[in-house]
Amino acid sequence: MNITFADKLYQSIEKKNNPTCVGLDPFVDKLPAHLLAHTRKELGDTVEAITQAILRFNQQIIDAVQDIVPAVKPQIAFYEQYGIQGLNVYRETCLYARSKGLLVIADIKRNDIASTAQAYAQAYLGTTKVFNQEIEMFPSDAVTINAYLGKDGIDPFIHECKKYNKGVFVLVRTSNPSAKDFQDKTLIHGATLFEAVAEEVHHWSKEIMGTCGFSSIGAVVGATYPEQAKKLREIMPNTFFLVPGYGAQGATAQDVKPCFIQGKGAIINASRSILYAFDPQNPEYFAEKARQAAITMQKDILSVL
Amino acid sequence: MNITFADKLYQSIEKKNNPTCVGLDPFVDKLPAHLLAHTRKELGDTVEAITQAILRFNQQIIDAVQDIVPAVKPQIAFYEQYGIQGLNVYRETCLYARSKGLLVIADIKRNDIASTAQAYAQAYLGTTKVFNQEIEMFPSDAVTINAYLGKDGIDPFIHECKKYNKGVFVLVRTSNPSAKDFQDKTLIHGATLFEAVAEEVHHWSKEIMGTCGFSSIGAVVGATYPEQAKKLREIMPNTFFLVPGYGAQGATAQDVKPCFIQGKGAIINASRSILYAFDPQNPEYFAEKARQAAITMQKDILSVL
Repeated sequence: MNITFADKLYQSIEKKNNPTCVGLDPFVDKLPAHLLAHTRKELGDTVEAITQAILRFNQQIIDAVQDIVPAVKPQIAFYEQYGIQGLNVYRETCLYARSKGLLVIADIKRNDIASTAQAYAQAYLGTTKVFNQEIEMFPSDAVTINAYLGKDGIDPFIHECKKYNKGVFVLVRTSNPSAKDFQDKTLIHGATLFEAVAEEVHHWSKEIMGTCGFSSIGAVVGATYPEQAKKLREIMPNTFFLVPGYGAQGATAQDVKPCFIQGKGAIINASRSILYAFDPQNPEYFAEKARQAAITMQKDILSVL
Repeated sequence: MNITFADKLYQSIEKKNNPTCVGLDPFVDKLPAHLLAHTRKELGDTVEAITQAILRFNQQIIDAVQDIVPAVKPQIAFYEQYGIQGLNVYRETCLYARSKGLLVIADIKRNDIASTAQAYAQAYLGTTKVFNQEIEMFPSDAVTINAYLGKDGIDPFIHECKKYNKGVFVLVRTSNPSAKDFQDKTLIHGATLFEAVAEEVHHWSKEIMGTCGFSSIGAVVGATYPEQAKKLREIMPNTFFLVPGYGAQGATAQDVKPCFIQGKGAIINASRSILYAFDPQNPEYFAEKARQAAITMQKDILSVL
């Protein structure tokens, strides 16, 4: 049982021959109309009608892709926007995905000073002490984190990763247009800020190396800038890359290719292009269409490796 | 009613003659023993026993300081670590503080790409559409945010600020030892990264200027480095500073003085030194002791302005 997160992810990618994951980013306006109509009839014009529709959507998506993909990546903001009930459904989604053998990468981008980071790390990776019990609050296998506050805000996450065989993906270079505002600033010694963050992540990654040759301390590297991905691969040869930006955000299989080392060590995320692959006129086939889109993505990525 | 967050904060500071706020950071091991004993007897060894003790603690702290301080700053991580029930108590705490006329600065440090940042902004500053209703999920007056992803991840927060007269405090220079890891990196043109962030925040701050002369787009500037605070004041003359680090983290009134401009435009936070000012042998006086500690802090800060 003492297998690192990096090894679990590596093995699952190998077994399923698929270095991709499905982002569970629910947009209420894009949900299959019949799902929402059903919960609305049942629960009225309530938050719960929306969150239950999201849960049923997620569960059917998970059922449809669970034998194909190694992991799912719920983006917690889309659940937080529905308050307590949204977070309840976030939690249910994570539990359901894990019960189906999927790894859960919680896209939370949390960050703070050490004592506070400790609370986040317990909430999402470890356990919280409740009298004589240790309870998992929002169970996941890995989380995304933001390193702007430096190493002392990262250490509590690494601590929980070591203790519970979990993982983190540190934001290095994101996929959005404004990523350049600060991440691309040139430092006095000639590197950019994101390269400096990458150098530190490489250094930190040695703390939890898996037998697969990759670390449980990974990096978020946007797919939208392939030249940068190439450079980041050189700086972080042992770091798992979590790669957003494929599909709806515009990156192609060729764009993400430099994130891999000999075809290994990266997992490419797509959300909207999988979840909402269905024809809104025929929403009842959404799960089947998501499965087809996931297979198409798998083939597309494998074709360049 | 169309008064900006900066003006609300400025006026409340003036009215109470107190540029400080109380951080609501519950640590279960530091709670007054009798409070936890009481809820434990009522609810057993459960998460709810802890979260209800936290809520009662927060409510009594709020009652004790509501006529003295302009704002409270709950740190959401300490609630997230207790899962759904923790977040429910976080929400109850925010609502209670607002019902007592206090401004609530939600210390959430959220950050993401635009479409995701929009979901966070709705959750904490704006409203979420639920069929024909607009619902406030986690109501607060301002939030802290992390700018590593650049302006397109900030804009959705600014949008909600404009729409609902709310505020943001962008992390510029944090109070922790490792803040230096990235924030102090020197850029090619000679400034540090945190100064470059400050320059952008100054630029952004013009989007929502209050009549008080300060903007609703503020900055988090740690009190632990007074020389840097002085420099940041020059870069951001119209920006409200939210200043952590006073008290338990070691900064003094003299250290925070450079965060003010002629005694205005900053709010100094203290958490542990207020909340846990009581003698653990006599925990029943915790609220009174918190009030005394808040008054002592007020006098201490005012003495240098």
